[in-house]
Amino acid sequence: MSLGAVFVSEVIGTAILLLLGCGVVANVALPKNNGTDGGFLMVNFGWGLAVFAGVYAAWKSGAHLNPAVTIGLLTQSLGDEPVTYAKGVEITAASTMVYLAAELIGAFIGAVLCWMAYKKQFDERGEAGSLGVFSTGPQIRSTGWNLVTEALGTFVLVFIIMMFGKSPAGLGPLAVALLVVGIGASLGGPTGYAINPARDLGPRIAHAVLPIPHKDDSNWGYAWIPVVGPLLGAVAAGLLAIVYM
Amino acid sequence: MSLGAVFVSEVIGTAILLLLGCGVVANVALPKNNGTDGGFLMVNFGWGLAVFAGVYAAWKSGAHLNPAVTIGLLTQSLGDEPVTYAKGVEITAASTMVYLAAELIGAFIGAVLCWMAYKKQFDERGEAGSLGVFSTGPQIRSTGWNLVTEALGTFVLVFIIMMFGKSPAGLGPLAVALLVVGIGASLGGPTGYAINPARDLGPRIAHAVLPIPHKDDSNWGYAWIPVVGPLLGAVAAGLLAIVYM
Amino acid sequence: MSLGAVFVSEVIGTAILLLLGCGVVANVALPKNNGTDGGFLMVNFGWGLAVFAGVYAAWKSGAHLNPAVTIGLLTQSLGDEPVTYAKGVEITAASTMVYLAAELIGAFIGAVLCWMAYKKQFDERGEAGSLGVFSTGPQIRSTGWNLVTEALGTFVLVFIIMMFGKSPAGLGPLAVALLVVGIGASLGGPTGYAINPARDLGPRIAHAVLPIPHKDDSNWGYAWIPVVGPLLGAVAAGLLAIVYM
Amino acid sequence: MSLGAVFVSEVIGTAILLLLGCGVVANVALPKNNGTDGGFLMVNFGWGLAVFAGVYAAWKSGAHLNPAVTIGLLTQSLGDEPVTYAKGVEITAASTMVYLAAELIGAFIGAVLCWMAYKKQFDERGEAGSLGVFSTGPQIRSTGWNLVTEALGTFVLVFIIMMFGKSPAGLGPLAVALLVVGIGASLGGPTGYAINPARDLGPRIAHAVLPIPHKDDSNWGYAWIPVVGPLLGAVAAGLLAIVYM
Repeated sequence: MSLGAVFVSEVIGTAILLLLGCGVVANVALPKNNGTDGGFLMVNFGWGLAVFAGVYAAWKSGAHLNPAVTIGLLTQSLGDEPVTYAKGVEITAASTMVYLAAELIGAFIGAVLCWMAYKKQFDERGEAGSLGVFSTGPQIRSTGWNLVTEALGTFVLVFIIMMFGKSPAGLGPLAVALLVVGIGASLGGPTGYAINPARDLGPRIAHAVLPIPHKDDSNWGYAWIPVVGPLLGAVAAGLLAIVYM
Repeated sequence: MSLGAVFVSEVIGTAILLLLGCGVVANVALPKNNGTDGGFLMVNFGWGLAVFAGVYAAWKSGAHLNPAVTIGLLTQSLGDEPVTYAKGVEITAASTMVYLAAELIGAFIGAVLCWMAYKKQFDERGEAGSLGVFSTGPQIRSTGWNLVTEALGTFVLVFIIMMFGKSPAGLGPLAVALLVVGIGASLGGPTGYAINPARDLGPRIAHAVLPIPHKDDSNWGYAWIPVVGPLLGAVAAGLLAIVYM
Repeated sequence: MSLGAVFVSEVIGTAILLLLGCGVVANVALPKNNGTDGGFLMVNFGWGLAVFAGVYAAWKSGAHLNPAVTIGLLTQSLGDEPVTYAKGVEITAASTMVYLAAELIGAFIGAVLCWMAYKKQFDERGEAGSLGVFSTGPQIRSTGWNLVTEALGTFVLVFIIMMFGKSPAGLGPLAVALLVVGIGASLGGPTGYAINPARDLGPRIAHAVLPIPHKDDSNWGYAWIPVVGPLLGAVAAGLLAIVYM
Repeated sequence: MSLGAVFVSEVIGTAILLLLGCGVVANVALPKNNGTDGGFLMVNFGWGLAVFAGVYAAWKSGAHLNPAVTIGLLTQSLGDEPVTYAKGVEITAASTMVYLAAELIGAFIGAVLCWMAYKKQFDERGEAGSLGVFSTGPQIRSTGWNLVTEALGTFVLVFIIMMFGKSPAGLGPLAVALLVVGIGASLGGPTGYAINPARDLGPRIAHAVLPIPHKDDSNWGYAWIPVVGPLLGAVAAGLLAIVYM
């Protein structure tokens, strides 16, 4: 498959992931919605099913939708077993850059689409914050422990995805959706489970440029943590997969 | 398969969809129910599983249950790949009309059945509204943005359904059920996610004719938005599918 | 398969269904539980997954677990297509009686097991009622409309189960579990969705004989409705299946 | 497969089970989390999906993750049908010890990882308890009835897992995940559903040794109940499986 097709597939899939993922947060966190104050389990299901839809949309390119998945596979390719990014997509510097760029651009687009779906709710949100719909933030700020939390959540995500191929149960997109529901419920408490650098950075940029009234600060001082933490977890997952599988 | 069989299948499936779909709203929104105030996630699961049951019921006709699906496939058929409405059902003006009519009639019947199941709760509902059990309405009225929200939700629904056939995971009715749970949680906040013209219009007519005490106005001024918005999203999904697949 | 094996299988499956099904109600409705006031969606999932477990337990006998399923199949056998109760189990007067008896006895046993699991919570429940853990009751008493609600819910249950065989998605026990979650969320508001005569009658008898302190009246005046309503719905489903399939 | 590989597989799987399982309790029970007060259904889904992830991680060794499963299979092996611990792993005294040790050690490690993910929340938890995140405890203390509750829940878990192989629906890890969601919702009220001796004992030891400020007493007087109760249930399940299957 051409890298152009990979690019389009990942952009579409990640855009749908972020449209639905930021959407459920908007539904719960902004006032004047049917789902206002719908609870964290609803957020967990919303993100899990956002992944579900995104994976179908990006079936051509193996549906990474997440730089942590891409970097995890890159790490795993250091081992002896052959690894590819998708059927017919070799791991090279060029393909790696295409995945990473598409994921970030798709996440940006998805966040803009979410803002469009909730335009009136953003405009009339009163005291409610705006950044939290787009990007994650810690409940208690701590550089080291916030990194640990994000790395652990992403480690579980990437490692278990690598195990899926070993199971005869062909649940496909459902398996990763449920995994994300579970990680959110279990490890989303302290930092809001970015577990995906593009999922956090793309929408943060979108938030910075969109015409949202009285919007929050972008919190760039925290923005590197949901990038670095997930990548650390992904590398750890790739290394463990090499020795374990 | 005969168009008569298609008609019966879609009527039965859409009736079951609306019986269960309006049912969960009745359960949550009307007083004196076990599910009163059960929350929006319960509504999302109720509608998703309503689709689940409806899809099984309408297996003969491919289970559109939704004019947006029919029109999305009609749009997709403008491309080069062969498309049918169901196994053995060609896309023609006649078959299109049969699907659309059956969906609307089935939705009307399902809404009447729901009213029967909740007859006493409607009669003794006190201050609670009546129209909201049947049809959708916006939290914040805005012709343009309400259309955008409905179009985006329906775009995701129809586009991902078109992708299902590319996945080896044969989840079938479960996949569309979970997709609807996700769209509801993520994009159902501003307008209540009609994402299906028949789902909104059929019950609105039912509400207008049923003998419900002190019932709400039918809000016909809004009624065209959950028809036009979903159709716009469906056409967009069909066009994207032509160039993407 | 021998009718003795059918009997044992249905007793075990229905006992597990009621142990878990009454269990989730006990968890939510009795004080001093982790799930106290856990909400109706939790009850819906609890009952759905109770069916899930019960279906696996009763795999030998086709896992009816419900006289409405048995009577629905009996009705369907009046048509031209061959119908059996399970692989290797013909529909006869004797096998019908074995299923019905096993379902009622299993339900009784399951209710007793649930009482054992929640023994201390029953003993120290203060003002909380006792019958509601075992059997259903209407939010608004109305012989006719309560029958309608129970018949509609059971019609959906039995009719969709009959359609499962037509779908290539081999979800098996999961499909019926999700169907029950959905029916509970959507049609469980007015009467608590017995949709199964054994599920209501067996535990009602158990409640009447168990040594529960200051227990409620058995409400025998209502007890026939969750028997007759479901059977009406099951016959309707069987008749529709004859003409539809 | 070598017993060393079994050991590693069970340690990894059980560690992930406890990381996610204790994680969801931490999210709900500790203050300053996104999921604080998220409700018992969220805890049920969190534990169920923790099993889901753990089963994929431990695919090599058959994913017991629970001494009750190991002992249940050991009991079942007393019958005439051939039983193994996993493909290529015979039931011997040595393999039994490897499973039990790996489960306990994995559970300890998972609890430590959970503490790391929630480090700041533990440190700044104010009046909230600490032991409840790690281990179970009864709502109403009663040696006999607490044992009954734990034995019944584990009986359902182990017995239904033994039935999975008889179903053609290849749901694999999803089936056991949903089973655990259901047991938690239905039988988790009185004692918090340990239903797994390692799940309770490993984290209890972790809680005892970790540097958590103003931590709770370890409640060793109760600690034997979530060990003995589950083992009784597992033996009962194994014996019933011998005569039933």
